[in-house]
Amino acid sequence: MNDTFLKACRGEDVSYTPIWIMRQAGRYLPEYRAVRGKADFLTMCKTPGLAAEVTLQPIDILKVDAAILFSDILIPCEAMGQGLEFHEGKGPLLAPAIRDEETVRRLSVPDPEDKMRFVMDAVRLLRKELSGRVPLIGFAGAPFTTATYMIEGGTSKNFLNTKRMIYENPALYKTFMDKVTATITEYLKAQIAAGAQAVQIFDTWGGIFSPADFREHALSYVKMIIRNLKEWMLSRGETVPVIYFVGETAGLLEEIRTSGADVFGVDWRIDLDSAAARLGNDVVVQGNLDPLSLFLPVNKIEERVKDVLRRGASARGHIFNLGHGVVPQTPPENVVALVEMVHRLSKK
Amino acid sequence: MNDTFLKACRGEDVSYTPIWIMRQAGRYLPEYRAVRGKADFLTMCKTPGLAAEVTLQPIDILKVDAAILFSDILIPCEAMGQGLEFHEGKGPLLAPAIRDEETVRRLSVPDPEDKMRFVMDAVRLLRKELSGRVPLIGFAGAPFTTATYMIEGGTSKNFLNTKRMIYENPALYKTFMDKVTATITEYLKAQIAAGAQAVQIFDTWGGIFSPADFREHALSYVKMIIRNLKEWMLSRGETVPVIYFVGETAGLLEEIRTSGADVFGVDWRIDLDSAAARLGNDVVVQGNLDPLSLFLPVNKIEERVKDVLRRGASARGHIFNLGHGVVPQTPPENVVALVEMVHRLSKK
Repeated sequence: MNDTFLKACRGEDVSYTPIWIMRQAGRYLPEYRAVRGKADFLTMCKTPGLAAEVTLQPIDILKVDAAILFSDILIPCEAMGQGLEFHEGKGPLLAPAIRDEETVRRLSVPDPEDKMRFVMDAVRLLRKELSGRVPLIGFAGAPFTTATYMIEGGTSKNFLNTKRMIYENPALYKTFMDKVTATITEYLKAQIAAGAQAVQIFDTWGGIFSPADFREHALSYVKMIIRNLKEWMLSRGETVPVIYFVGETAGLLEEIRTSGADVFGVDWRIDLDSAAARLGNDVVVQGNLDPLSLFLPVNKIEERVKDVLRRGASARGHIFNLGHGVVPQTPPENVVALVEMVHRLSKK
Repeated sequence: MNDTFLKACRGEDVSYTPIWIMRQAGRYLPEYRAVRGKADFLTMCKTPGLAAEVTLQPIDILKVDAAILFSDILIPCEAMGQGLEFHEGKGPLLAPAIRDEETVRRLSVPDPEDKMRFVMDAVRLLRKELSGRVPLIGFAGAPFTTATYMIEGGTSKNFLNTKRMIYENPALYKTFMDKVTATITEYLKAQIAAGAQAVQIFDTWGGIFSPADFREHALSYVKMIIRNLKEWMLSRGETVPVIYFVGETAGLLEEIRTSGADVFGVDWRIDLDSAAARLGNDVVVQGNLDPLSLFLPVNKIEERVKDVLRRGASARGHIFNLGHGVVPQTPPENVVALVEMVHRLSKK
């Protein structure tokens, strides 16, 4: 059993820096595209056998130190009662957009083993198929990031509708966020109960806020989830690490450090040692190579890997990752090379 | 003559905090929409009388302390020989996209008084019509931000083509950037010669880089422009302040401080006092209210204005602004209220 990733999450000594890659089960892999050619994206998410198949691909191909469940952060939106569609090259469409009392009222807090059973089935299947090779990471969107999609009805440029709800009708936003937070809390518990050995909370859009707004309208809900999960795990005698990833972290690190997470995901827009210093140094950081630097020649990638490893060494622990998901056009051989480099260059 | 803005740019004592607003001549104003109803966006940019008319509107309506020329950062792209179109609700289209030796080779470094004379005519007209009421700010896109539009052919999500050129063909990128930098340098000189009393360099997309990439592929060209402008101004006995605005500044402040600019524009994703501290405190900062906080009730806007003023006071000088452009849906009465508040609350 390769438990280097889990040890690093807990800040324990490791013999090399573990690595996994956000969106490692993705379109840059021909093996993934072969599966995707047979089923649409949402069908893949909802078919445990297919989700498990693509989750396992990067373990064999890249030799990463952790598997992350293939799924989508918008799955809970559909389970709450909002329509969810993905159209080729267009991004997600969620309808109706959640913008008034009535649409908020109609949303439910679903039982995950009822409405999202396929996710937990995939987790159970994967734990069996991995049989201890590497740990399995579960995940969910943070409440704020999830809410932006539900309010905007998809992706957004400046999150106008989301901020308008927050600024013009804060009571409605709070009622809505309480439902989203309850849903995500139960969803993460269900993933852990099904066998997830770590969980990552993705707050991709948290960085659109000023620090004070981030604290009040995004972070407070993440804190509730983490506190709730930790109490629940304690009562079960479990200690599953929680990773908190925020996109565009640089202005918010002093806030993020109070989240209660075990590991802090850092995007590439800041040097990892500066980020670690502002997080308090006695923390475990995850990151933070620019995903697009995988288009560099391999010798230049190696220079950057060395730099990230050197900077990451200033924290108590470091899990190597990109600063955001790997993009579909990335040469897969460079991703394979990246994992090899991190293992080789960090060996003690 | 209200020279509070120019004094603040130079770090001199002022009796209140001056304010202007990025995109203050814009669609949130009914008076702007009335002009825009008669001419398309590019025609407005190219007709000095119309550009001057909308430039002056916010001076009368908002009582801001500076006028900023109505124009677009993509004007120099067309002058260099690339096709430029704006379509309602679609963003700019530039063709052909600059991605290979041939398209780079075909670009010229234009004489601004020849190919962009309408801009300088607008500046000359405005100086006459303003007759000293408030100073006039000229502007240009930073070379990197300008280059992203030229390479992508418009706006972009992850700037894949831009980063690919940088990482896969750095020599071509450099050749291209040298042309863009020369064009923008001459363009800013021409604006100053025509009467611009301050200039702002917009590096809206600078924040997509890691600090090292930002330094090498964006900041180095801005430094060349500022150094060149300062020498040229010295030889003419002029001291027009240069403002450098970067979107998503938070991870890059230690780099930005070396730019040579007189004033540093800060976006809203970081507290202004933290930004000032990392810039060195003995600097003049400009910013940084979240544009969407103008949807708050007026009493809540006032709380935020107080907070920004308090934080801005830690720098040598502070020019109030939003952290990015005002959005079209903003209630204009809240923008009027903002300017009144800044003046009232900062009065010494």
